[in-house]
Amino acid sequence: MGEFLDISTLIKGASRIIILVIAFLIVRAVGKNIINRTFSRMKEQRNMHAGRVQTLYKLSVNVFSYILIFIFITILIGIFGLEIAPIIAGAGVIGLAIGFGAQGLVSDVVTGFFILLEKQIDVEDYISAAGVGGVVEEVGLRTTQIRGFDGTLHFIPNRNISNVDNHSRGNMRAMIDIGISYDDNIDEAVRVLQDVCDQLAAEEPAIKEGPDVLGVQGIGESDVVIRILGKTENMEQWGIERKLRKACKEALDKNGIDIPYPHQVYVDKRREQ
Amino acid sequence: MGEFLDISTLIKGASRIIILVIAFLIVRAVGKNIINRTFSRMKEQRNMHAGRVQTLYKLSVNVFSYILIFIFITILIGIFGLEIAPIIAGAGVIGLAIGFGAQGLVSDVVTGFFILLEKQIDVEDYISAAGVGGVVEEVGLRTTQIRGFDGTLHFIPNRNISNVDNHSRGNMRAMIDIGISYDDNIDEAVRVLQDVCDQLAAEEPAIKEGPDVLGVQGIGESDVVIRILGKTENMEQWGIERKLRKACKEALDKNGIDIPYPHQVYVDKRREQ
Amino acid sequence: MGEFLDISTLIKGASRIIILVIAFLIVRAVGKNIINRTFSRMKEQRNMHAGRVQTLYKLSVNVFSYILIFIFITILIGIFGLEIAPIIAGAGVIGLAIGFGAQGLVSDVVTGFFILLEKQIDVEDYISAAGVGGVVEEVGLRTTQIRGFDGTLHFIPNRNISNVDNHSRGNMRAMIDIGISYDDNIDEAVRVLQDVCDQLAAEEPAIKEGPDVLGVQGIGESDVVIRILGKTENMEQWGIERKLRKACKEALDKNGIDIPYPHQVYVDKRREQ
Amino acid sequence: MGEFLDISTLIKGASRIIILVIAFLIVRAVGKNIINRTFSRMKEQRNMHAGRVQTLYKLSVNVFSYILIFIFITILIGIFGLEIAPIIAGAGVIGLAIGFGAQGLVSDVVTGFFILLEKQIDVEDYISAAGVGGVVEEVGLRTTQIRGFDGTLHFIPNRNISNVDNHSRGNMRAMIDIGISYDDNIDEAVRVLQDVCDQLAAEEPAIKEGPDVLGVQGIGESDVVIRILGKTENMEQWGIERKLRKACKEALDKNGIDIPYPHQVYVDKRREQ
Amino acid sequence: MGEFLDISTLIKGASRIIILVIAFLIVRAVGKNIINRTFSRMKEQRNMHAGRVQTLYKLSVNVFSYILIFIFITILIGIFGLEIAPIIAGAGVIGLAIGFGAQGLVSDVVTGFFILLEKQIDVEDYISAAGVGGVVEEVGLRTTQIRGFDGTLHFIPNRNISNVDNHSRGNMRAMIDIGISYDDNIDEAVRVLQDVCDQLAAEEPAIKEGPDVLGVQGIGESDVVIRILGKTENMEQWGIERKLRKACKEALDKNGIDIPYPHQVYVDKRREQ
Amino acid sequence: MGEFLDISTLIKGASRIIILVIAFLIVRAVGKNIINRTFSRMKEQRNMHAGRVQTLYKLSVNVFSYILIFIFITILIGIFGLEIAPIIAGAGVIGLAIGFGAQGLVSDVVTGFFILLEKQIDVEDYISAAGVGGVVEEVGLRTTQIRGFDGTLHFIPNRNISNVDNHSRGNMRAMIDIGISYDDNIDEAVRVLQDVCDQLAAEEPAIKEGPDVLGVQGIGESDVVIRILGKTENMEQWGIERKLRKACKEALDKNGIDIPYPHQVYVDKRREQ
Amino acid sequence: MGEFLDISTLIKGASRIIILVIAFLIVRAVGKNIINRTFSRMKEQRNMHAGRVQTLYKLSVNVFSYILIFIFITILIGIFGLEIAPIIAGAGVIGLAIGFGAQGLVSDVVTGFFILLEKQIDVEDYISAAGVGGVVEEVGLRTTQIRGFDGTLHFIPNRNISNVDNHSRGNMRAMIDIGISYDDNIDEAVRVLQDVCDQLAAEEPAIKEGPDVLGVQGIGESDVVIRILGKTENMEQWGIERKLRKACKEALDKNGIDIPYPHQVYVDKRREQ
Repeated sequence: MGEFLDISTLIKGASRIIILVIAFLIVRAVGKNIINRTFSRMKEQRNMHAGRVQTLYKLSVNVFSYILIFIFITILIGIFGLEIAPIIAGAGVIGLAIGFGAQGLVSDVVTGFFILLEKQIDVEDYISAAGVGGVVEEVGLRTTQIRGFDGTLHFIPNRNISNVDNHSRGNMRAMIDIGISYDDNIDEAVRVLQDVCDQLAAEEPAIKEGPDVLGVQGIGESDVVIRILGKTENMEQWGIERKLRKACKEALDKNGIDIPYPHQVYVDKRREQ
Repeated sequence: MGEFLDISTLIKGASRIIILVIAFLIVRAVGKNIINRTFSRMKEQRNMHAGRVQTLYKLSVNVFSYILIFIFITILIGIFGLEIAPIIAGAGVIGLAIGFGAQGLVSDVVTGFFILLEKQIDVEDYISAAGVGGVVEEVGLRTTQIRGFDGTLHFIPNRNISNVDNHSRGNMRAMIDIGISYDDNIDEAVRVLQDVCDQLAAEEPAIKEGPDVLGVQGIGESDVVIRILGKTENMEQWGIERKLRKACKEALDKNGIDIPYPHQVYVDKRREQ
Repeated sequence: MGEFLDISTLIKGASRIIILVIAFLIVRAVGKNIINRTFSRMKEQRNMHAGRVQTLYKLSVNVFSYILIFIFITILIGIFGLEIAPIIAGAGVIGLAIGFGAQGLVSDVVTGFFILLEKQIDVEDYISAAGVGGVVEEVGLRTTQIRGFDGTLHFIPNRNISNVDNHSRGNMRAMIDIGISYDDNIDEAVRVLQDVCDQLAAEEPAIKEGPDVLGVQGIGESDVVIRILGKTENMEQWGIERKLRKACKEALDKNGIDIPYPHQVYVDKRREQ
Repeated sequence: MGEFLDISTLIKGASRIIILVIAFLIVRAVGKNIINRTFSRMKEQRNMHAGRVQTLYKLSVNVFSYILIFIFITILIGIFGLEIAPIIAGAGVIGLAIGFGAQGLVSDVVTGFFILLEKQIDVEDYISAAGVGGVVEEVGLRTTQIRGFDGTLHFIPNRNISNVDNHSRGNMRAMIDIGISYDDNIDEAVRVLQDVCDQLAAEEPAIKEGPDVLGVQGIGESDVVIRILGKTENMEQWGIERKLRKACKEALDKNGIDIPYPHQVYVDKRREQ
Repeated sequence: MGEFLDISTLIKGASRIIILVIAFLIVRAVGKNIINRTFSRMKEQRNMHAGRVQTLYKLSVNVFSYILIFIFITILIGIFGLEIAPIIAGAGVIGLAIGFGAQGLVSDVVTGFFILLEKQIDVEDYISAAGVGGVVEEVGLRTTQIRGFDGTLHFIPNRNISNVDNHSRGNMRAMIDIGISYDDNIDEAVRVLQDVCDQLAAEEPAIKEGPDVLGVQGIGESDVVIRILGKTENMEQWGIERKLRKACKEALDKNGIDIPYPHQVYVDKRREQ
Repeated sequence: MGEFLDISTLIKGASRIIILVIAFLIVRAVGKNIINRTFSRMKEQRNMHAGRVQTLYKLSVNVFSYILIFIFITILIGIFGLEIAPIIAGAGVIGLAIGFGAQGLVSDVVTGFFILLEKQIDVEDYISAAGVGGVVEEVGLRTTQIRGFDGTLHFIPNRNISNVDNHSRGNMRAMIDIGISYDDNIDEAVRVLQDVCDQLAAEEPAIKEGPDVLGVQGIGESDVVIRILGKTENMEQWGIERKLRKACKEALDKNGIDIPYPHQVYVDKRREQ
Repeated sequence: MGEFLDISTLIKGASRIIILVIAFLIVRAVGKNIINRTFSRMKEQRNMHAGRVQTLYKLSVNVFSYILIFIFITILIGIFGLEIAPIIAGAGVIGLAIGFGAQGLVSDVVTGFFILLEKQIDVEDYISAAGVGGVVEEVGLRTTQIRGFDGTLHFIPNRNISNVDNHSRGNMRAMIDIGISYDDNIDEAVRVLQDVCDQLAAEEPAIKEGPDVLGVQGIGESDVVIRILGKTENMEQWGIERKLRKACKEALDKNGIDIPYPHQVYVDKRREQ
């Protein structure tokens, strides 16, 4: 244990560490500055997809930080190398353990690499992956950050991302099911609903296809279900569905066609009084 | 750390990288051009299945890109080789980790290879796999892209694809269950429904077999369930089912046979007024 | 990188590949022809089970294709051998990865081998395995193809098949549960139902045992449940069950015994008018 | 590739294979004959449990077949040995893959061995294992065959069998729950039910213990639940339960005690007419 | 293949096997006899826990059998050793497979060893483990046998036993929830129920603590739930709960406090007649 | 096999074993005595947390037993060493199997070590872990014993304990939801409930914070849900919640505010008579 | 066994251990003191995020303890080294077992390292991870402590933390769904609700965006569902939602718009009297 507690060794190590930390801080500041300038110029000059530039910018910062930290730790271990070595007696066993432990890290980086290479995800995309949905904030070397619609920030290790459902690649479907009563005429209802669809399609530029009345989708509990289907611009599907629902409901009301909603009994409990 | 920060080494490396990148861009452009021309000629001359040509075209582009990137990285590592080698001290352990990490990649490629070899999937097929359903857009070496019916683009690592359910290989079943009331005559109802089926089969060329009334499928909640079964052209099953539902409902109405839908109580809450 | 881009090497390789491809196509055509003829003769001469012949025929084609492709790739790698070898530097690590990746393939072949050896599956059998049910179309060395009843073609890697439920090996059970009201006489109901069973058993040659009325299976929600059980020829169980349901329902009606189906309240919403 | 396609080698190999196949067929016929005779004599002479003899007989045939096939393949590989060896270049990697693949097979045999050694299963036993229930048809070295009650034949690789639930080892429980109304006297109901139990126990020799009325098992939805418990001969529990249900229902009716079944509203939809 | 089929070798082997089998049968008979006598004396002389003696007795027989079989097989392999060795060419691979296969066996024995060492289970204990509940019949070196309450005999490989829930180690809880109507006085109901509890505690020696009325456990669907809690002798909890339910129900009836059970509508379907 | 059955070896071994067993019993008695005295003195002299002393005492006994048994077995194997060695021929394979088997044991000890080091669990704590909840009775080197509230004793191998939910570390939340009718005034109800809370807080010293009325938590089925939240002393939360429920219910009754509990229809089935 | 029980060795070992323990206690006290002072000064001087300082402080104490214990055990093993070594005969196998066992520990530390490096979690953050939600109390090298809202303290091994859902990083969504009756005018209801939203937004500074009425979100069971969406300061979302619910309910009441809550039948059971 003698040389482990040797003071001169400690001092020498400490001074080295201080120099290392200062060097680390300087390199980090300079590096980040260079990355920032590169990407701000790139945004101005070239006509790249904005989300892709954002993705690459955040990734560059992320990769730069990791490489810096990796070099930092490598040098640090070099400084301490001589002192630690004799302590780790069972290095073979520990090495094996670290190998298995590091496996997850390699998995993260490999998966992250392919996600970026295959352009599966860009920053600002709305995706679902690893049981989480939301808008991508950053695709890092090891972790992807997704902002859920409720404001939660999800950190997902890349290895957890297997299937990626990207909801920001092309037009989206708007679909609603309207139930009419068993006693209403199906042809009449279809005609009324198709009129509503055509009018909305004319008014809303976000609608790309349809919407069209498909026909009798089901013979449900107490109603005959009519399905309406269309395509809208990305992220506009919910708004269009809301407008479609309102318009259909009002049109059916106006034409005297019942929506046979599963009414539960309402009996005013004060009627006896 | 001396030679790591040596400027001449850096300059030499940088110039090599620039040459490499330029070479990479040229080869990529030329290669893609060749692939495009090959496949456009193939489409004209030979009478191959269009989906298969599309599948092979997309795969060729995909494989070409990967091989190019692989060569690019191999050369890049060669350039940096001398500098990186001493840093990665615990190479054995890290090698092990990479081996395990790369295992997933190998799994992707092997599975992808067999999916293509066994013609399980073609571009434009409607399939279900890995918990996702939709129309195949691309079968890559590592990832398969499926466009969901709601517009979402699903990226599925090939290793996740085990069972493939291909819904585009042959005629599909059209099946509907119609419930009649307990008080109605079963034979009469079967006769009416079979008439509807025969008429529709005569009208619709998309119907390939039947549809036929099978009989009493179940004695359900408040109804006797009659099953109708037929075969239609691929992807036409939903349309035929919708038409069958409408026709059956109208025929039963006309013949005075009740569909004993589970009515929930409706009591107008304004009747007391 | 010099010799990698050497043109004479490329030409030599290309010419070898062309010869190889032509040889491959000739051998494949000849081989398939031989297999076809062998099996068509086998079907005529010997009195083997037709499904088994079909299974073996499809398997032979499948195995022949795989062996051909394996030889083709082996030769191809031989042609490229010298060029690829120096690129794959970390061959040990990659070898390990391939070993693990190939493990799945070995699993497929081993499982497939035992499925065939133990005659668990024949082509045309109706089976359930790996969460999928349907009629077997082909048992390959690596993949089994099952045609679902809705027309979907399921490709199942053999390794996914653990428990095999074969529904085509012997007579099948026909079982229906009939509920009678709490106020009806149990002995009377049993007598009526047994009469129905006996009559149907006499009429239908597909019925092999029973059907017999077992007795009071349960005291359910609002009804006393009577169970009827029989055995039918394979694949005839659903048809017999449908006929049994219809016959029982009509017999109980005729004898004034209620099927106390869980009626939901029906109140005509127009009665106030 | 020269010697691979050498004709004389092919002929020599083919003649050897034909001899081998003939030898194989002869040995198999002789071996099966010996096994059959041994077990038919064993059944006559010794007083072993019939199911056990059946288990051992089927196992012997199964083991004999596997050993024969193993020897057959070993010799076959010997014949082809020289030709295949040079092709399998990466034998180390493939060996590893086979080792892992074979692991499942070893698991099957080891598990099967202990299932037989510990007499967990005999042919004709009714067991549940690996999510499947039914009567055992054969316990093989690698696979166990169970005949489900619906006629399906289940093939279960032995490795899938972990917990074995053997329902054919001793007397079985017969248990029914009878609900009486909240307004009925509990002591009276218990007395009536106990009388029914005693009478049935006297009539039915299959009843081994009880049945006894345990008391108020629960205060359920709209009823006070009385539990009755007994023991019967193996496989007779369902029949006894059916008889017990019928007897209890009729006794409670006769004594004017209500079974407060959760009646759903019944309102005749024709009462308005 | 010559020496494999050599007749003299076969005869020599056969004679050795016969001697071995006879020796095996003798040793087994003698060994079992010794174990039986040892344990019957142990039961008389010492004052050990009966369940523990039973556990150790069954274990001894089990361990003795396994050691005997192990020695038997070892010798048997010794006899066949020379003949088998050349056949198993790829012994390394197969050895690996056996090693992995045997892993499960080692797991069984290790787990079984600790279950016994830590006295987690004794024969006659009522336990739940590996998703199965019942009374332990035997704890073996490899398998534990549990008799389910329905008569089924469960064989559980020890490795499947992770959490052991032992229900036979100390007093058990008796707990019932009684719902009173919203309109009843809570204090009054608590007083009545506490009286019932005190009376039952005085009558039943199996009750060890309480039972006490805890208070308002919940404001449930249409009732205010009062909880009663006590402790009873092991295995007596169900009997006490039944008695408590009956006593509480009768006491509340007598004191005019409603149990507001979720009555479903009862409308006699014959009232219109 | 000669020397294996040599009598003098057997006798020598037997005498050694007897000496070993006697030594074992003496050491165990002495060791336990020392541990007992150490901890009883520790409890008197120092002011350590009682649960912690208990934890350490039980652990010491547990560790002492295991070390003793380990030494015992090591010596025992030493005695038998020569005889066993030649039998275990395939020691490499078996060693591998044992290594994997022992892995679970190491996992137990490592996890147990950290649970104790990080003071996650003390004896007498109420915790939930590995799907089991209850009061900790002993934290051993290999197994943790938890007494469930129903009296069951759970044995949990430490490796199964991943997340530990310790319910005995600080004040606990008391929370109740009270539903008021849609027609009641929300402000009025909140005022009444807050009065109840303030009064209870004044009466009960176990209440540490609040309880406070938070406001309208939900617009539920037929009621407006008001949430009340407070903090109580550990393990007092259930008692306080019961008192809060009773007090709120009575206060709302007194102030004429309805708890609009989901009444199910009650129609006296005897009203027609 | 001689030298193992040698007394002088024991005394020498014991004296060493005592010195070691004393040294350990001193170093621990000094180290903790230094850490405390460093962080209290840091809090005063620099303007770091308070939660981050807290995180680093707790981590420093945690890491310091572990390093100390690691050195302590290393030295301890050094003291005992000679005596233990010969006992652990099968060190290779045990080493393998420890390697696998330690793998979990390495996983914990690696995951913990990245959680801190990527600032996924700070002390005082409200997060969800590993199926547990609550406020972070400490992020240790091996374990993260989360205080659940019910007062439970959750200990989570870092390896169990994969996806981290951090609910304390930015504004949160406040969202409520209000159902209006089918007979009410949708435009009118939207206008009333938007007025409520605007007024609340003016009153509450915690509201950052909206709230806005989105439109018809669904045509639900018996109601037309209107969705309201806004953004609030972190952790204020629940309070704002409660206020929004109360305000909307009161505004709709005032404007005579029904909330068509699914009323269940209420029939006073005393009405007959």
